[in-house]
Amino acid sequence: MTETTYPREGTAFLLVDPYNDFLSEGGKVFPLIKPVADDIGLIDNLRRLDAAVRAAGIQVAIVPHHRWEPGDYEHWDHPSPSQRRIMQTHAFARGEWGGDWHPDFAPKPGDIVAQEHWGQSGFANTDLDMRLKQQGITHVIVVGLLANTCIESTARFAMELGYHVTLVRDATAALKPEMMHAAHELNGPTFAHAILTTAELIAALPQG
Amino acid sequence: MTETTYPREGTAFLLVDPYNDFLSEGGKVFPLIKPVADDIGLIDNLRRLDAAVRAAGIQVAIVPHHRWEPGDYEHWDHPSPSQRRIMQTHAFARGEWGGDWHPDFAPKPGDIVAQEHWGQSGFANTDLDMRLKQQGITHVIVVGLLANTCIESTARFAMELGYHVTLVRDATAALKPEMMHAAHELNGPTFAHAILTTAELIAALPQG
Amino acid sequence: MTETTYPREGTAFLLVDPYNDFLSEGGKVFPLIKPVADDIGLIDNLRRLDAAVRAAGIQVAIVPHHRWEPGDYEHWDHPSPSQRRIMQTHAFARGEWGGDWHPDFAPKPGDIVAQEHWGQSGFANTDLDMRLKQQGITHVIVVGLLANTCIESTARFAMELGYHVTLVRDATAALKPEMMHAAHELNGPTFAHAILTTAELIAALPQG
Amino acid sequence: MTETTYPREGTAFLLVDPYNDFLSEGGKVFPLIKPVADDIGLIDNLRRLDAAVRAAGIQVAIVPHHRWEPGDYEHWDHPSPSQRRIMQTHAFARGEWGGDWHPDFAPKPGDIVAQEHWGQSGFANTDLDMRLKQQGITHVIVVGLLANTCIESTARFAMELGYHVTLVRDATAALKPEMMHAAHELNGPTFAHAILTTAELIAALPQG
Repeated sequence: MTETTYPREGTAFLLVDPYNDFLSEGGKVFPLIKPVADDIGLIDNLRRLDAAVRAAGIQVAIVPHHRWEPGDYEHWDHPSPSQRRIMQTHAFARGEWGGDWHPDFAPKPGDIVAQEHWGQSGFANTDLDMRLKQQGITHVIVVGLLANTCIESTARFAMELGYHVTLVRDATAALKPEMMHAAHELNGPTFAHAILTTAELIAALPQG
Repeated sequence: MTETTYPREGTAFLLVDPYNDFLSEGGKVFPLIKPVADDIGLIDNLRRLDAAVRAAGIQVAIVPHHRWEPGDYEHWDHPSPSQRRIMQTHAFARGEWGGDWHPDFAPKPGDIVAQEHWGQSGFANTDLDMRLKQQGITHVIVVGLLANTCIESTARFAMELGYHVTLVRDATAALKPEMMHAAHELNGPTFAHAILTTAELIAALPQG
Repeated sequence: MTETTYPREGTAFLLVDPYNDFLSEGGKVFPLIKPVADDIGLIDNLRRLDAAVRAAGIQVAIVPHHRWEPGDYEHWDHPSPSQRRIMQTHAFARGEWGGDWHPDFAPKPGDIVAQEHWGQSGFANTDLDMRLKQQGITHVIVVGLLANTCIESTARFAMELGYHVTLVRDATAALKPEMMHAAHELNGPTFAHAILTTAELIAALPQG
Repeated sequence: MTETTYPREGTAFLLVDPYNDFLSEGGKVFPLIKPVADDIGLIDNLRRLDAAVRAAGIQVAIVPHHRWEPGDYEHWDHPSPSQRRIMQTHAFARGEWGGDWHPDFAPKPGDIVAQEHWGQSGFANTDLDMRLKQQGITHVIVVGLLANTCIESTARFAMELGYHVTLVRDATAALKPEMMHAAHELNGPTFAHAILTTAELIAALPQG
């Protein structure tokens, strides 16, 4: 992996699924990721990254999971295991607090807000690729939840689509430490062009 | 995960990257996967599955990785880590033995042979989805190499595309046992509708 | 073109852009299509088709154009000519009457409502293909507006995706009669599997 | 339509289906397009454009139709009307003169040669989008055959994918003049960012 520089005009910061259910005390999924998140300082790292990329003039794109609504998936022939669980837990419910943005990570003016993704990849069945292409984006930094599901699928799709892909090992979380290990030590190194820490990424961003 | 039945007309058996370099003694990648492959009986399982799905009248689709040719990737802005390694190793070289089919798994008349994929997913930048749709396929069984790269990405894409997805835990291999664990115990259960052994899958195929 | 039968379980009726701006007196675009629409009896034909496909138990999918919002397209490198015009006319404005459903063609319970498309094809950058695949759809009937833009692009994409595609020559409209001619006599016959009248299609639907 | 400039590094010249069957005396389809082609000077224009874009340092991408082979389409549920005709005519047969490149338009070193497309769009079910993205392409110029089928579908898909799209009205042909009219006067102006003559495009290319 060679050292990466991030072109100001060509880089997008993809913030995946920044919902209260994932990131806030009281969220439906938060308790499951809290041990890993606390251990790596997830929320603080996301805050520092968010500030740093905005200061650097880099495009922010919010990449939101489909918000659950009554009836979802019920007429599908074969919802995925994750989708079946959402049918029971109603995670990210539309119109509820859990499906609202974590207050620190709500979209700001000028951000891209992609269409909601039904599965794990923010590129699958959404407008994300076209929206990035319409702004000349060639490099994506993928952070948020979960390391081995939505982050990994979004990153795998990004590579296949021809983007330069960066993962940030302490700006994501998972249900278990071994899932973080799988994402960053086993799988990520085969498809991601860079796997950095928050501090390393901030140091590599374009300056002033 | 509910018990799956496989519709004869609607199921395809996706055999990913059945090249000598992956599956044959003397292949460039084979030594790296041999410990895992031998441990689970990969080649025998693939042979049994191949015979069983053909006997059951299920569509076979060969899903081949791009065969390396001189010049490949050299003008790309950012080949992936796996692609950079192929630039050095020339794995699956076109016109060479390593890039030829393992003799037991060469396409047979009536098989679909998809376009070669450049990355990890057999669906990305190829005709595989359309070819399956043109034959009414709704269920895919994904086997071959490697469990955590091409098999996993092909399966992740298949789920996003709306297919029912089955992994077969002893009909694939990887560089390390922990990669098999990641594929089948950590990641697969979030996106795959069924994760079976070869014996379990054969028992679930349509009979007579 | 061979005679087509429409499988009840495998057919979807794609109703594209049924907005007041397109279909209602007082809509922003309606005056431009009114001569063609009146000439062929567009609204009545859409009503008859809508009733007939629902009576036949066929899946209805609403395929809506992106509803204009302030700021749309402004940061894009190169909006298309149609998108540039929407930047001026604000057609299909979100939250306004023009961007609301024509009252006869609002979604009903059980209908698929696809994500909004930004361009001309209801399949591009949306979840439409996956939603159809999750219900085993193999045949699509594409009606609505405009014959040579959104209907034609949706139909061209459907063919590439592997669907059986039907156009209905008097269930769409365009700005000029020669555009209808182009859609149904020049271009459609190269990619559509059937081009029928409303009466012919109703006669071909599954009975009882 | 605003005046377009073509960035040397960001523009690709997509030459669609430059086969003998389309472009050479004795080709299977050539007699059908000869009246239109001769009228506009198609072959000379393609030669002039090819020379000009290469001199300007612009990336050339060959976008080839699937070459017919025995058995093609026979197991498909619903080949398109164009595909059904190819089943009869064997146009662009692999290994035959008709499916070989017109000698003036064979790929040269450094050209992208995309995977063969089965339908009308050079982007559908191929690697063309990824190949362009891997070289930072944002603008595409689409020329070759036929104006209202492969050229139009390739251009419609390019717009949806987020590219800037240019058509060249005298560097394509069709079976009838009214198809040229439909492509360039009725449909193209809704999705293409520029519709130029060969002379206009050459004048707009980057100099020296």
